[in-house]
Amino acid sequence: MSKAAETYCYDGSGKFSLKNYPTNSKKDGPAKEEIVAKFDKNLEEMAKLHDKFYADGREGVIFLFQAMDAAGKDSTIKRVINGFNPAGVYVYSFKQPTATELKHDYLWRFNQVLPARGEVAIFNRSYYEDVGTVRLHEFWKGYKMPERNLKKDANAFFSERYQQINAYEEYLYDNGYRVVKFFLNLSKDKQKERFLERIDMPEKNWKFSASDLSERARWDDYQKLYDDIITNTSTKHAPWYIIPADQKWYTRYLVSEVILDTLKSCKSKYPEMSDEEKANLAGYKKTLEEEH
Amino acid sequence: MSKAAETYCYDGSGKFSLKNYPTNSKKDGPAKEEIVAKFDKNLEEMAKLHDKFYADGREGVIFLFQAMDAAGKDSTIKRVINGFNPAGVYVYSFKQPTATELKHDYLWRFNQVLPARGEVAIFNRSYYEDVGTVRLHEFWKGYKMPERNLKKDANAFFSERYQQINAYEEYLYDNGYRVVKFFLNLSKDKQKERFLERIDMPEKNWKFSASDLSERARWDDYQKLYDDIITNTSTKHAPWYIIPADQKWYTRYLVSEVILDTLKSCKSKYPEMSDEEKANLAGYKKTLEEEH
Repeated sequence: MSKAAETYCYDGSGKFSLKNYPTNSKKDGPAKEEIVAKFDKNLEEMAKLHDKFYADGREGVIFLFQAMDAAGKDSTIKRVINGFNPAGVYVYSFKQPTATELKHDYLWRFNQVLPARGEVAIFNRSYYEDVGTVRLHEFWKGYKMPERNLKKDANAFFSERYQQINAYEEYLYDNGYRVVKFFLNLSKDKQKERFLERIDMPEKNWKFSASDLSERARWDDYQKLYDDIITNTSTKHAPWYIIPADQKWYTRYLVSEVILDTLKSCKSKYPEMSDEEKANLAGYKKTLEEEH
Repeated sequence: MSKAAETYCYDGSGKFSLKNYPTNSKKDGPAKEEIVAKFDKNLEEMAKLHDKFYADGREGVIFLFQAMDAAGKDSTIKRVINGFNPAGVYVYSFKQPTATELKHDYLWRFNQVLPARGEVAIFNRSYYEDVGTVRLHEFWKGYKMPERNLKKDANAFFSERYQQINAYEEYLYDNGYRVVKFFLNLSKDKQKERFLERIDMPEKNWKFSASDLSERARWDDYQKLYDDIITNTSTKHAPWYIIPADQKWYTRYLVSEVILDTLKSCKSKYPEMSDEEKANLAGYKKTLEEEH
């Protein structure tokens, strides 16, 4: 694993607290110029690895992003995606579930868009909202579900969901998939700064809504909840990466490092031709060359 | 419409023949360097327009690509996609239909992945295979369909499909969508050159299959069929663009010109806030600034 990826990885060993993870680059002290250049190089390397990954078609990867508002999920995805072959990568932004989606189990809508092997899916938000926002706002209490499910207290209900998620991600791993989870770790001050920017710049107004403020008011609750989520859903095969999010250039560089690491660990190979197929190829070449 | 887009557009006026459309840049005589620089500028402009298009959310666009093998569909898509915000664009590569897809009407699988308004879908192949390959190889004769459909001769069967496609594209237009159709126009010599490259470069071998040669053997049939398809499915609202495909740098530039034209014609605007919402915004700003 690369140093950058290792530093920000939590795979369930030891006690976890968001407080122990930096929201900016101060601790690492990298030079911005160097990082920007490295990021560009990483994109080039990603392109080569993803090309092989796509041709190989034995593994599938889901990169999922969770964060507080304005942490830069959209812009990070927008930048790192340039390292992928567009035919083999899909971005899914999950909003509030629709009425139809709510009628199903909470993993159903994610299952609909799982990547095929050889493909990469990027989830902008994910089923971690179903143990996050859904818990904080107590949406689950209004769900149409059997009494046997809803009579549980929140701790029991969401402990079960953690186990279900862990089992789901393990199932995916055992079927040729990797789930790589990013938490973009923003400071409260930086969020304020970015919100004010959205209010002050007319062309960014549409990104801002009143609910952003009411969510911000529950900042501490969310931080506590993410401590709980990450503690309970970090596993060796599906770890969380807690990425500093106060400087976008550093965020996307670290994310690209983790993506590179992931693609490398797939050890993809271009499909090799059998000797028979190779012999055929020589025949095809002759056919083409002898065309008049 | 830009000059480049206009030159290669066929909207159904006058008689059509592929033979009248160049496969390379000779006729236009552009300098490669200039075109490469223009392409980069086009991507930047696309990014701005698509951002607005996405925020506006009133129109949806489907850009679809058809071509002979090795015309550069994949690589063109790979390059022009960099002008879009990845959260608002999807690439779909349509291969041979699955058993489930074959059980449905031929437009069904494309309907599944129509973009929402505000989104762009790029179709790598499309329902035009259902009047192309399906006709040439007579696949339709093996379809499980009522006798009343299958007893028709090919001309009647596919005339009907042309009308259905025209009606479908008109329906989409009347519901806020645009269908923009590219035929990447490759010369037979250039295809041979690219096939030989695929055979000679081990890392490109996997892109080559024996069927590529048997399809090539029917080159003239395909050209004739595309004459028929384009003649019968070019309309004012859903024209075909016949793009020279022998030089990839020129192909992608012309495609980017058409995309730009399309996005411009959508006249997207950032959603404007009502006076009431603007007043609220000032209140939110105050709340944030007065936080302690």
